[in-house]
Amino acid sequence: MNLSPHPSGAKGNSLVRQAMEAVTGHLREQKLRVGDTLPGEGHFAAELGVSRAVMREAFGALAALNVIDVANGRKPRVAAIDGSVIATSLGHAVSTAQVSVAQVWDVRRTLEVRTAALAAENRTEEEAAALLALVDAMAQEAEDLGEVTNLDIAFHTLIAQASRNQLFHQIVSSFSPLMEIAVPAAWRTRETDAERGSVLEHHRDVARAIADRDPESACSAMEKHFASSIGRILASTDA
Amino acid sequence: MNLSPHPSGAKGNSLVRQAMEAVTGHLREQKLRVGDTLPGEGHFAAELGVSRAVMREAFGALAALNVIDVANGRKPRVAAIDGSVIATSLGHAVSTAQVSVAQVWDVRRTLEVRTAALAAENRTEEEAAALLALVDAMAQEAEDLGEVTNLDIAFHTLIAQASRNQLFHQIVSSFSPLMEIAVPAAWRTRETDAERGSVLEHHRDVARAIADRDPESACSAMEKHFASSIGRILASTDA
Repeated sequence: MNLSPHPSGAKGNSLVRQAMEAVTGHLREQKLRVGDTLPGEGHFAAELGVSRAVMREAFGALAALNVIDVANGRKPRVAAIDGSVIATSLGHAVSTAQVSVAQVWDVRRTLEVRTAALAAENRTEEEAAALLALVDAMAQEAEDLGEVTNLDIAFHTLIAQASRNQLFHQIVSSFSPLMEIAVPAAWRTRETDAERGSVLEHHRDVARAIADRDPESACSAMEKHFASSIGRILASTDA
Repeated sequence: MNLSPHPSGAKGNSLVRQAMEAVTGHLREQKLRVGDTLPGEGHFAAELGVSRAVMREAFGALAALNVIDVANGRKPRVAAIDGSVIATSLGHAVSTAQVSVAQVWDVRRTLEVRTAALAAENRTEEEAAALLALVDAMAQEAEDLGEVTNLDIAFHTLIAQASRNQLFHQIVSSFSPLMEIAVPAAWRTRETDAERGSVLEHHRDVARAIADRDPESACSAMEKHFASSIGRILASTDA
């Protein structure tokens, strides 16, 4: 076996990659679901005829990619997707200037105009009430930038959740770390009460349209919200 | 140091997570770009006061997440984002039934209606010519399902590339493994020459609108393409 002394780097190591594919193949063939247990490293190492070191690295990479959960001393389990993996890619792409803030906002807008429409069709009563409550809370906390930011992120994430499409939900969630930086920057440019009021009204229009089960109005309110916010974001960054 | 004997599983291990954040923080603070080298595990282990095992695992996880390239015997380098990380999440979510094929197609359509418009604005002459050539090739290879699938994937990926937004490009690229399964399934339902011809015409309409630098027509042609294809996909899967 041609094992390097230092096997880090799943991409560069085809043995590790094959070991990863064997595990994901197992999940698929056995039709495993989130929370189901899977065999440990030893089982796969024996089955594939690879060393424990290779298998350990494959398990580590799959855990990093949120495919499996490997808590210490417990059996490995099938993991639920969450936005953190895409968030890491996204954060990396932005911090190394592979993608600009404006380009991230274009992707967000594209996705969220659709999640607004889907939320209008699929939201529960609780979600409709929670969205309106989040807008009220934003109005009350308008002076507290940190709190407004948290409420703003919660608002967009809840709409994505209410879309009932986990993929939209997780991609939109993955933008949260970037919003933690961009949202306060945008709010700082809104200096007058009138300016802040108009942003709140855009949020309220989105929430109302979703509560009214009106996908078209939800789309166009979200479009308006982004059209006005993107200008602010771009004014506040050198993107 | 409270190191578990078996440190796999970045999520469950906050030491590893802190080590990962130290590395991504370094990339950000030093304003490193794709291809730039960064210090090795030993440097970070000493700086953070953690063991080599922890640092090795952090580097392995960052390599799995495509943040750094760690080829054997070479210095670690800043990695370019590519769709493979999101593709792994996506493939996992579909194979474990967290997301349905129909939901993936909804996300694709949402993104690709936008990439079609951006491509119409930003494509190069070479890209416009290549898109039209891909449609011609699809018409010629209509009997060879494998080849048509490759051309179809290349067509959608090239449009995303021509959008000049790397984030759209990489997310759309991440759908390729799923398209390798879904596209042949959809083509098999197109039994008559007329049916296949109409799919080709949709592709040609998209390519022409992009070549004509006409974002609105590009959008509506892509909408039409998906509206007809999604019905086929759903007819051919139990999604």
